Amino acid sequence: MTTNRQFKLAKRPVGMVKREDFDFAQGPVGEPGPGEVLLKVLYLSLDPAMRGWMNEGKSYVPPVGIGEVMRAGGVGRVIKSNDPKFAVGDHAVGLPGVQEYAVMPAKGLTKVDPKLAPLPVYLGTLGMPGMTAYFGLFDVGQFKPGDTVVVSGAAGAVGQVVGQIAKLKGAGKVVGIAGGPDKCKWCVDELGYDACIDYKSGDLKKQLKAECPKGVDIYFDNVGGDILDTVLTQLAMHARVLICGAISQYNNTTPMKGPSNYMSLLVNRATMKGFVVFDYAARYKEAAMEMGGWMAQGKLKSREDIVDGLETFPDTLLKLFKGENVGKLVLKVAGE
Amino acid sequence: MTTNRQFKLAKRPVGMVKREDFDFAQGPVGEPGPGEVLLKVLYLSLDPAMRGWMNEGKSYVPPVGIGEVMRAGGVGRVIKSNDPKFAVGDHAVGLPGVQEYAVMPAKGLTKVDPKLAPLPVYLGTLGMPGMTAYFGLFDVGQFKPGDTVVVSGAAGAVGQVVGQIAKLKGAGKVVGIAGGPDKCKWCVDELGYDACIDYKSGDLKKQLKAECPKGVDIYFDNVGGDILDTVLTQLAMHARVLICGAISQYNNTTPMKGPSNYMSLLVNRATMKGFVVFDYAARYKEAAMEMGGWMAQGKLKSREDIVDGLETFPDTLLKLFKGENVGKLVLKVAGE
Repeated sequence: MTTNRQFKLAKRPVGMVKREDFDFAQGPVGEPGPGEVLLKVLYLSLDPAMRGWMNEGKSYVPPVGIGEVMRAGGVGRVIKSNDPKFAVGDHAVGLPGVQEYAVMPAKGLTKVDPKLAPLPVYLGTLGMPGMTAYFGLFDVGQFKPGDTVVVSGAAGAVGQVVGQIAKLKGAGKVVGIAGGPDKCKWCVDELGYDACIDYKSGDLKKQLKAECPKGVDIYFDNVGGDILDTVLTQLAMHARVLICGAISQYNNTTPMKGPSNYMSLLVNRATMKGFVVFDYAARYKEAAMEMGGWMAQGKLKSREDIVDGLETFPDTLLKLFKGENVGKLVLKVAGE
Repeated sequence: MTTNRQFKLAKRPVGMVKREDFDFAQGPVGEPGPGEVLLKVLYLSLDPAMRGWMNEGKSYVPPVGIGEVMRAGGVGRVIKSNDPKFAVGDHAVGLPGVQEYAVMPAKGLTKVDPKLAPLPVYLGTLGMPGMTAYFGLFDVGQFKPGDTVVVSGAAGAVGQVVGQIAKLKGAGKVVGIAGGPDKCKWCVDELGYDACIDYKSGDLKKQLKAECPKGVDIYFDNVGGDILDTVLTQLAMHARVLICGAISQYNNTTPMKGPSNYMSLLVNRATMKGFVVFDYAARYKEAAMEMGGWMAQGKLKSREDIVDGLETFPDTLLKLFKGENVGKLVLKVAGE
């Protein structure tokens, strides 16, 4: 058996993540015990949330310990199995971590079928980002047909799904916010957003006002910071502001910027809600069936931004925070 | 007929309200037209929200215009009536403005009975502040018996009611936040708060943690700023943060301080909700009956901080922002 290359967290990053925050190590390939399988990792999911997992302190999951393999979602092929639920050759998603091989309890893995969708899609639109979009918009956000929906990070892994499924369910208008003309063009031309505002050019507030003359019913926020603050000025009565993430703030060395226009919640009798997709685990199947159906009918598109090579991990992760990815950012670890 | 002394808004205040922001004028006493009454103002309600009404720009009510009588709630005696619903000698509450006499449409007034409660109480516990506490806590906040409830501005007009009615409905623990040892002692000794933290002394976060070991289920926020930010660090899962006001921020000359710890909403699957009591107008009676019953049984106390003399209006209003009032701040305009 070959060695197992792994990225371990070497220290807690200060500000932007750097290569030196990780130790690129070689370890042995483990042996699965009873109820465990050995997974050969094929694709890893790179997510904004990973930045938070590197920090010390309470969050919705424990932080990654110093010296531990960096936590990451991924999809791979079972190459040894000590559990009747998995046969060698099966494909499965879970949290293998940033490494080539992972010994994992079978109950932490979900079988997926590469014939139904390409494997990277199970890390994106049919994975956590898709589930986040689905339950965030429909359950937490109490979406109603006719709603004006605004989504930031519109071209990202979650955003690309939010915009499309809002349209599919009868939104009155769907407006994206993204960085740069290329992403915005893609959101409108390919994903079917009614409009997409490039926050890097022009006056976001003015453009939002023009695009959403009746105000924003649902704001699906993936970015925080100034964009959240600006959208708060354009809420409709009884608006729902969904706090999904705050990628603009994760690498701050100063305290996070709070939304100074939060009193707009009072004026507009609006609600700001935080949520974590894991709470919906028991209902993933329901979302996967509906979204898988849309994909099969060509109504829901999914784009993955795939970068090759485990060794590129720290730099590839940075693409997220620089806004360089379009669609779901995936690290290819091995050929299928 | 005597003249009518009035405070008119002379200019939009910058920062803290000053006497020069008002014009203390003398006008004629008006004549009520059809469907109107002439009210002799007895007591005026001084509220933090008045600061917002002086600013230009969209809010939940239009701003007071320059040269207009300053808007204020109040209670008075009907001295002329052109409407069958009111007889001379009736007492009524409404929005007469900061003046001695007001011509008002009868439909903007609600009759009150001075035999059931002292008139100033209709501006406090049985008025808007009481309604705000009641519908905020029970309706917006989805209060459940056993909840740990924290309220800021605990000794203020709204706070004094929130703390008491939370206890009456079976809160697990009610913790106030107020400025100074006297207010805190009063909250605990007289109102029955389980604890009250003096935010001006010691470490608020540490004290909150000690008083609310299971976290905060409902935070009823009247103050905003650093206190809101600190309480956000102590939320329980599925907490509700009620945005009722932000008195610490109303006189800012810089942008309002946003809550930098708002991502605690995500970690704790919590909700931040804004509300405006006027939306509950159709249900005021329900609240007044329950709270009036508690008052009659001596279970709900109400304190008013009454200052005498219309001419003191600008300085008396400042007591709110300096935290000098205990209970509901009322300006006495004339003897009953």
